[in-house]
Amino acid sequence: MTLKEDIQRLGKQARVAAHRLATLTTDQKNQCLQAMAEGLLKASDIIQKANEQDLGVGRTAGLSAAMLDRLALNDKRISAMAAGLREVAALPDPVGRVLEDRTRPNGLRLQKVAVPIGVIAFIYESRPNVTADAAGLCLKAGNAVILRGGKEAIQSNRAIANVLLDSGAGAGLPANAVQLVQTTDREAVRELVQLTGLVDVVIPRGGEALIRAVTENARVPVIKHYKGVCHVYVDRDADLDMAERIVLNAKCQRPAVCNAMETLLVDEAVAKTFLPRIANALLAKKVELRGDDATRELIAAAKAATEADWSTEYGDLIINIRVVADVDAAIAHINHYGSQHSDAIVTRDRAAADRFLREVDSAAVYHNASTRFTDGGEFGMGAEVGISTDKIGVRGPMGLEELTAYKWIVEGTGQVRE
Amino acid sequence: MTLKEDIQRLGKQARVAAHRLATLTTDQKNQCLQAMAEGLLKASDIIQKANEQDLGVGRTAGLSAAMLDRLALNDKRISAMAAGLREVAALPDPVGRVLEDRTRPNGLRLQKVAVPIGVIAFIYESRPNVTADAAGLCLKAGNAVILRGGKEAIQSNRAIANVLLDSGAGAGLPANAVQLVQTTDREAVRELVQLTGLVDVVIPRGGEALIRAVTENARVPVIKHYKGVCHVYVDRDADLDMAERIVLNAKCQRPAVCNAMETLLVDEAVAKTFLPRIANALLAKKVELRGDDATRELIAAAKAATEADWSTEYGDLIINIRVVADVDAAIAHINHYGSQHSDAIVTRDRAAADRFLREVDSAAVYHNASTRFTDGGEFGMGAEVGISTDKIGVRGPMGLEELTAYKWIVEGTGQVRE
Repeated sequence: MTLKEDIQRLGKQARVAAHRLATLTTDQKNQCLQAMAEGLLKASDIIQKANEQDLGVGRTAGLSAAMLDRLALNDKRISAMAAGLREVAALPDPVGRVLEDRTRPNGLRLQKVAVPIGVIAFIYESRPNVTADAAGLCLKAGNAVILRGGKEAIQSNRAIANVLLDSGAGAGLPANAVQLVQTTDREAVRELVQLTGLVDVVIPRGGEALIRAVTENARVPVIKHYKGVCHVYVDRDADLDMAERIVLNAKCQRPAVCNAMETLLVDEAVAKTFLPRIANALLAKKVELRGDDATRELIAAAKAATEADWSTEYGDLIINIRVVADVDAAIAHINHYGSQHSDAIVTRDRAAADRFLREVDSAAVYHNASTRFTDGGEFGMGAEVGISTDKIGVRGPMGLEELTAYKWIVEGTGQVRE
Repeated sequence: MTLKEDIQRLGKQARVAAHRLATLTTDQKNQCLQAMAEGLLKASDIIQKANEQDLGVGRTAGLSAAMLDRLALNDKRISAMAAGLREVAALPDPVGRVLEDRTRPNGLRLQKVAVPIGVIAFIYESRPNVTADAAGLCLKAGNAVILRGGKEAIQSNRAIANVLLDSGAGAGLPANAVQLVQTTDREAVRELVQLTGLVDVVIPRGGEALIRAVTENARVPVIKHYKGVCHVYVDRDADLDMAERIVLNAKCQRPAVCNAMETLLVDEAVAKTFLPRIANALLAKKVELRGDDATRELIAAAKAATEADWSTEYGDLIINIRVVADVDAAIAHINHYGSQHSDAIVTRDRAAADRFLREVDSAAVYHNASTRFTDGGEFGMGAEVGISTDKIGVRGPMGLEELTAYKWIVEGTGQVRE
């Protein structure tokens, strides 16, 4: 079988599974999720053995300590995967929600009802826990999923997928509801995103190269989970104590995640007061500072920021700093260099806040709060498969409700159109 | 300037316009729409003169009478375009709707608010009235639009677009809020759908070749308005009088539109009773019948339907007829051959209806009503740019609300993440 045929087979099998998944009750889906959680706990040793293989290959290949840490599984991380599946089981079923209900003058009753999307292709990078998280969320929303993880995690992903399938099957999980692409050949992604009529949506979650590979080849709809180049703008009317707390939190509390801040914008009216102070606080947290000329006049420790720096997601303790003329300049900078993810203004000026919230074209816009809150859990959605940086279909955290589509159900008594 | 540069220029101009459009008030947008309606009426002669050029070229090129009719503009059709813009002005503004509003335990207030999508590229075929309809709807939803019509209608489209721009400008329409691609070069579509970062969504509305050209080349999100291969299934428990009324309406009332029926499926339990009767009624309306073997045993007048016929949108007085074993076979046929547009079951059996409504994977599913109701006006949305056959973003009629995206606005008092 060629690679193309093999990927098509996955698509066809998923289509059949999607049809069956759409007819499962909430209880049936929850039983599968509970069994899968149980299965992960029982197979913890097997999964860790597979993970050791990946770590061995990774060490030989010279992966960084940070990458090896993302790849590593232990009892605690496997328990967390199982707990994640149980949490998804406890969440309300997003399928069948009546989103609109209207009766027309001719007596036709229209209901807009949430339905599963169908078949989701989920393409991600190195963390193997995503395999269980995405499978669980897709299942609860009634979708068949085709998983394609990073090649660094292939043995771990295979072990996890096998456990999910075996334990799910015992609880009535339809065959092929969850499928893992077994090959690490990059060509597989290309084939997967061209399965028109078999795959309903592709969700790529990762860096520039992954997103480019998907969007350049896709013939099915894509919901991108792209990088987070997030900003905090400190306005002339900011409470500077609050601004310091928010900047430190957005940059330092967990710099590796997508909703962490990369660039600090400071209103020139408060730059002289605020910049030396925030620089000291950031340096105390071992943050590397990169700034524009105006910033470097006020902060000797700052390196010069390059043009490319302004649109870079460091995921690390590095920050860009720029002095801007006013809120308009801040908005313009963000809309030009940002990734439409999460951006914040700190100010006491209601008018400036309103302009920022309206004109910054990002999934989440904040007034007087840290960008770190862009997250399914923090938004009250429960778990999520990631943060969409697209505008069509889903924007921001993609939880269970965002993993559904809708249809219009029309009930008549013989109505015909005049 | 190369074609590529020219199309990029349109994209950049649209992006600037989108930023300005997002800040217009409802009144400002409505004033533009009223002025544009006024402008169309005043320029009726100029538009008809341009239209004459298109019709002349079309006649020489041997366009069919039906195509020439779709292309033709007269006083009545131009008045209808103007009335359409006024109707859009009268509809509620879809921007700024608060879709969700929640306060989290930490005091953060989250609002999910409808915002313009941004820049829409709208690609359509021969009807020139679409130029005004799409421009009006996009404007009301705060979007900049790049219009690309069929080459048969280029002079008419240019005349209409010029009138809209001139009259809109006098009422405060931002520059480049509405732009028409001036070239008829097909390469322009390719460039347009690759404008990542400049175009937020492409809406192709048309036949197989157009949709293929767009999806094969697109690097920006696409919402397809594809063909309507719609079905009516007459179940064993149907009221056959009602079934006859619905079938005749769905097929004959306006066969050229996308929500008209192409294929009739009849439960074998009622085929002997229903088929001869519906055949006579359809023949009386001059409908050409094409059937499977079982149908042709009961209806001598029916030609043999080919495999390709089952997935063809005739848009004409031709019908496919197939005898099926039961509701399951009907569902399987529709999910295999249909275009996920509009499909109906006629039955008194609640269980059969529920299965059909749940398992047929189409934008609109009907019980005891004609498929012809899939329409923004009939659904109570007001005007629409078309019917989406996609599942991501929008499904079914695409009206003003469906021309918006959303963002999350988060108001805090200094919250940081622990």
